[in-house]
Amino acid sequence: MWMQKTISLASKKRGFHLITDEVLSQLPELKEINVGLLHVFIQHTSASLTINENADPTVRGDMERHFNVLAPEGAPYFKHTYEGLDDMPAHIKSTLIGVSQTIPITQGCLNLGIWQGLYLCEHRDNASCRTIIVTVHGE
Amino acid sequence: MWMQKTISLASKKRGFHLITDEVLSQLPELKEINVGLLHVFIQHTSASLTINENADPTVRGDMERHFNVLAPEGAPYFKHTYEGLDDMPAHIKSTLIGVSQTIPITQGCLNLGIWQGLYLCEHRDNASCRTIIVTVHGE
Amino acid sequence: MWMQKTISLASKKRGFHLITDEVLSQLPELKEINVGLLHVFIQHTSASLTINENADPTVRGDMERHFNVLAPEGAPYFKHTYEGLDDMPAHIKSTLIGVSQTIPITQGCLNLGIWQGLYLCEHRDNASCRTIIVTVHGE
Repeated sequence: MWMQKTISLASKKRGFHLITDEVLSQLPELKEINVGLLHVFIQHTSASLTINENADPTVRGDMERHFNVLAPEGAPYFKHTYEGLDDMPAHIKSTLIGVSQTIPITQGCLNLGIWQGLYLCEHRDNASCRTIIVTVHGE
Repeated sequence: MWMQKTISLASKKRGFHLITDEVLSQLPELKEINVGLLHVFIQHTSASLTINENADPTVRGDMERHFNVLAPEGAPYFKHTYEGLDDMPAHIKSTLIGVSQTIPITQGCLNLGIWQGLYLCEHRDNASCRTIIVTVHGE
Repeated sequence: MWMQKTISLASKKRGFHLITDEVLSQLPELKEINVGLLHVFIQHTSASLTINENADPTVRGDMERHFNVLAPEGAPYFKHTYEGLDDMPAHIKSTLIGVSQTIPITQGCLNLGIWQGLYLCEHRDNASCRTIIVTVHGE
């Protein structure tokens, strides 16, 4: 069984955001899968998807602060600067973190660890909504 | 054909560890797949999985040393500090490296390059065993 | 339907290169897939694959310059040095960026965002051609 749909995520401020519930609420079909995989793909080059700690919001704050150190605005060697100071760091963060995640499905549920959640990492200052393609495959 | 199982990896000290053989020894089913994919997913937020050089142990040592520079302990802006100095850097390394890998299966074997191996990247000082979910799918 | 093939990519100079068309030209089978996934896997430990901006070449230049800051040559703690100054940084970049990408297939086409393209990230100074394994799966 294959299922694929396009989901629009509500726009979020720059930072790391837990979206597990926002995505799952649009995937009732998951319950029908005994064994399979969920693939989540973001169609943008200045945002990314990761899986990390789902409980303490300071983890998401520390992530934002540390990725701003790893990919700072205004590096003197940046040439791609005409879309704003936040743009080239956003592209770099997207490649460091990645634009997709694949998660096992087991007996109708995502088989995440107890402390894991799916994050949308928003790297632009003023982004609008973001589009993800979810592909569910299993039996 | 779908196959999925939970594997417990023996606890390892902080660092980068080659686990190709430890994982393959628990996947005899791979031999039955002519064309397919293996998905390996670690259910933790302070460890990660990568694929890299399988021969020289100094590569794994250099990885550990360099990721400690990329995500150092004690950064002054960290707020998530109550689980120890190694905790927030572990979360960052997990997002930088990633929690899953997908590897092609060809004629009953993983189709890795000749120099490639699967690594468990253990980012905590005193971790116990780690759980991975392996999903094999193919025909 | 499963399809898998080995593709040799023409050798490229060190840096980030758009390869969407080079890969797609060898995947006429994609047209037959209504819903599915493409998995692209590079069989090397000193090159990587990412998805990022497909229009402005200065993005690719800035990526190369910034990853050279994130994984510089000649770090004093590197022990894996006998294959050249560019070797250990190449291994680190490969793990930071990753060796595979999974992309949704929708109605016979890759369902990339309008600004997204597939990159080969070549981290060695004098690499020869690179081998990727592409696996197409869908219905």
